[in-house]
Amino acid sequence: MKYSMIGTWKMAFNGVIIGENILKNGGNVKDAIENAITYIEDNPNFNSVGYGSLPNIEGELELDAAFMDGNDLSFGAICSVKNIKNPIKVAHLLSNSKRNCYLSSRGAEKFARLNKFEFKNMLNDIAIDRWNNEIQKNFDPDNLEAYDGHDTVCMVALDSNKNMGVGVSTSGLFMKQSGRVGDSPVIGSGFYCDSKIGGAAATGVGEDIMKGCLSISIINNMKMGQDVQSACENALKDHVNRLKNPNYSPGTMSVIALDKNGNFGVATNRDEFPFIVTCENFSTKILVCRNNNLSMEIFEPDEEWLNNYDYD
Amino acid sequence: MKYSMIGTWKMAFNGVIIGENILKNGGNVKDAIENAITYIEDNPNFNSVGYGSLPNIEGELELDAAFMDGNDLSFGAICSVKNIKNPIKVAHLLSNSKRNCYLSSRGAEKFARLNKFEFKNMLNDIAIDRWNNEIQKNFDPDNLEAYDGHDTVCMVALDSNKNMGVGVSTSGLFMKQSGRVGDSPVIGSGFYCDSKIGGAAATGVGEDIMKGCLSISIINNMKMGQDVQSACENALKDHVNRLKNPNYSPGTMSVIALDKNGNFGVATNRDEFPFIVTCENFSTKILVCRNNNLSMEIFEPDEEWLNNYDYD
Repeated sequence: MKYSMIGTWKMAFNGVIIGENILKNGGNVKDAIENAITYIEDNPNFNSVGYGSLPNIEGELELDAAFMDGNDLSFGAICSVKNIKNPIKVAHLLSNSKRNCYLSSRGAEKFARLNKFEFKNMLNDIAIDRWNNEIQKNFDPDNLEAYDGHDTVCMVALDSNKNMGVGVSTSGLFMKQSGRVGDSPVIGSGFYCDSKIGGAAATGVGEDIMKGCLSISIINNMKMGQDVQSACENALKDHVNRLKNPNYSPGTMSVIALDKNGNFGVATNRDEFPFIVTCENFSTKILVCRNNNLSMEIFEPDEEWLNNYDYD
Repeated sequence: MKYSMIGTWKMAFNGVIIGENILKNGGNVKDAIENAITYIEDNPNFNSVGYGSLPNIEGELELDAAFMDGNDLSFGAICSVKNIKNPIKVAHLLSNSKRNCYLSSRGAEKFARLNKFEFKNMLNDIAIDRWNNEIQKNFDPDNLEAYDGHDTVCMVALDSNKNMGVGVSTSGLFMKQSGRVGDSPVIGSGFYCDSKIGGAAATGVGEDIMKGCLSISIINNMKMGQDVQSACENALKDHVNRLKNPNYSPGTMSVIALDKNGNFGVATNRDEFPFIVTCENFSTKILVCRNNNLSMEIFEPDEEWLNNYDYD
């Protein structure tokens, strides 16, 4: 494949179109990813990423993001940042640093200010209403689940020069504790990319994704010769089986991947997981991964499916 | 082996003795690790962990720590925390949480206060003098190296009930940027443990360790049938070779591991890397891993070696 791009959730659709337009004109994978995710961060309709997303238990938006360059394995990541308009841009810039490329909270915010990134009150009325509503409920902080139909946006892409990259951005679990870090800024768990093998990223309950380092597990499976779809299914299946325990039921986890030739793979332990793909053979489209006892079926959703899907 | 324990650097010696006394009397792996690392955090002679360790570029001590239970893969981690006397204790408590188990900076400090952990000014005269001296030099923030002879303390252990665990604690790279997160709190990179396979941990330049997710790479090598020493050597060698680039020379990285039977493995790309081991067959002792072109030779240091080693 000359180019290829995959993104998580239906919300990735317009972002992947932006990426497609860059990639099909010979553009760079980094631009495709940064622009695709920036669009989603800026759009308040996507309520788990960027502006107007999911507050923590204190009513504050704390965002995580990461960016990885598959050519030299360089990466940048930030966790628990407040009031940064586009976390993905900060993570991208950090990926140019040989040291100090992963920054947390206060330090990440200082870096963003000193590099003149845009700051903004990221809460909007919808996010505030959502939080006011939830805080009155009797929820269990130790059993939070990923926000249904939306979660981390992840993008994995390959450009026509065989460069690969991955970007992720999220507000993390709704009603998380202050300072909670999920899998998104954690290399090997929320994302990984090696242009000589492929790229992968994860969305769902970060704590459980991290216990299995799902993204690098997918890359390792490909390294051992598995095709990209088997690599995703086996990484997820092995991990879910390892977590099985009478006292523990794993949270939802979904993964996407591309191999170095641009073929895609996907897996989920939800019932269904929609994702967006494009490559030189077809323009941007939505597909759905259906989980049958940890075996995956991938289909193009019909109008009925799309009408029944409640999320942007 | 009935029990086994391994720790990084000569500084781990007295900590491993504490662990040995717990393990040989049938004690639990978690107590062995927490007590061993607490001792090192409290000791101002060990200048890259806990009290009196290495300030960041702003003269502040920001600490990272993590703890993992190999039985159910649960883990706790904190990054960029200030003024917490024993980060390892906070990470250990967090490993009991199903959600919100990895906390950063402000949120981690709040959690520690609410759980009544001890706070303390972690700077002492030696740390302040070291910082005052370094800040006047012409150092390159993008080429920081691990502090020679001291770095992250990592402990991997197996107890007589076949429980395995890992703990790590560090002040991170000397003169790091504010908020910089290294590999230590990052699962799969700084630490990983699965009681069905083994445990591993890393010390050195975190940015480069993270690019290869070294700890889970060692576990994956063991999973595929490699003995623990080969697993360590191959994980490091493969990663160093992958990073090779005319424009990039990887920082120092050292790894330790135990398999589920208590056999140990170790590897480094430094010239020499001292580490501490104990098991039912011998009491706590120091060994040195010597790197010959990424092939490892392990020897017991003689008096001359120890006299020439400049660090506690």
